[in-house]
Amino acid sequence: MKYPSKIKKQNQKSIDFANRGMSLENDLNLTNEYYIEKNIAVIHKKPTPIKLVKITFDCQKNAKINEAYFQSPSTTDYNGIYQGAYLDFEAKETKTRNFPLANINQHQINHLRKIIEHKGIAFLIIRFSIINETYLIKGEDFIDFIDKKTRKSIPYSYFKDNCFLIKESYCPRLDYIIIIKDLYFGGNYEKNDKKN
Amino acid sequence: MKYPSKIKKQNQKSIDFANRGMSLENDLNLTNEYYIEKNIAVIHKKPTPIKLVKITFDCQKNAKINEAYFQSPSTTDYNGIYQGAYLDFEAKETKTRNFPLANINQHQINHLRKIIEHKGIAFLIIRFSIINETYLIKGEDFIDFIDKKTRKSIPYSYFKDNCFLIKESYCPRLDYIIIIKDLYFGGNYEKNDKKN
Repeated sequence: MKYPSKIKKQNQKSIDFANRGMSLENDLNLTNEYYIEKNIAVIHKKPTPIKLVKITFDCQKNAKINEAYFQSPSTTDYNGIYQGAYLDFEAKETKTRNFPLANINQHQINHLRKIIEHKGIAFLIIRFSIINETYLIKGEDFIDFIDKKTRKSIPYSYFKDNCFLIKESYCPRLDYIIIIKDLYFGGNYEKNDKKN
Repeated sequence: MKYPSKIKKQNQKSIDFANRGMSLENDLNLTNEYYIEKNIAVIHKKPTPIKLVKITFDCQKNAKINEAYFQSPSTTDYNGIYQGAYLDFEAKETKTRNFPLANINQHQINHLRKIIEHKGIAFLIIRFSIINETYLIKGEDFIDFIDKKTRKSIPYSYFKDNCFLIKESYCPRLDYIIIIKDLYFGGNYEKNDKKN
């Protein structure tokens, strides 16, 4: 397929991945690096799934991908281990005062359900960019919202009243593990759903 | 970048991913699908990490990757959850009568160490293609081999004497979870290292 040189040029300009609205992802990557460094938890972002179409090899047999497409993920983006427990979450930013449920695809919802069923710790990290607040919503609460089918989005007020504001700082950027520790391993927020 | 049409044609021929020596990967993917379907465990292969260099967009804003390269993974390829526990493993095929330690990169070795440290279940699945036998080696045993530094490869005899032969069948193709169940959740192979 040929692209006019003008379009190509424009696109090349737009491929600055470091600033492609990935500030939440960036903050989480830095946080996860901190957790690994401090031996707190081992959590990684999964690579983006890509459908390979055309690959060429140079004379040193190095592969170069010449045609490929992004695929929609069938699981959440992040998983790992904390105190022996399996952790699994998705992270999203929203520019509005609510979180549209359509931002999480059906495969990801099914995946979160399965993780809960298998006694993993599932959650979502949602950043409201306009007010720069980031919340942790428990997978169970999120699924409950989906199952009720009364709304197409979760309002900000729900997060404020029922979810957990993640403290931001220089290092770690977004200390979400402290909430997980409180929720599942004994702490202030401890509820009925405490894990063994 | 332009490629002569001859080279292009040759390369297109070689991109039959289904048969690119990925039979172990294929068997594991089918096995993992079976585990999900039967609600036994939720284990996925992570997508291959790819470094994106050039992307273009068509008029519908669909992204097409025009230049990208494979990156070496910083973690193992597979992870997931079984009975609430975090599982993590790498899978490799070898065509010789031993398993060269160089087949697992340093990042992956460090990752396995960390998983063990954080009380996850870490292991490797090694297939000896020439005799069509697939073994599960515990992460602890593999790390022990690395740390001893006496050999550059693990001989087949070690696998035969100290590891666990994975039964192959039509469905599931490679039932490795049954070994994990025995090793860590009470069963025949139960040893001192039983998890709580």
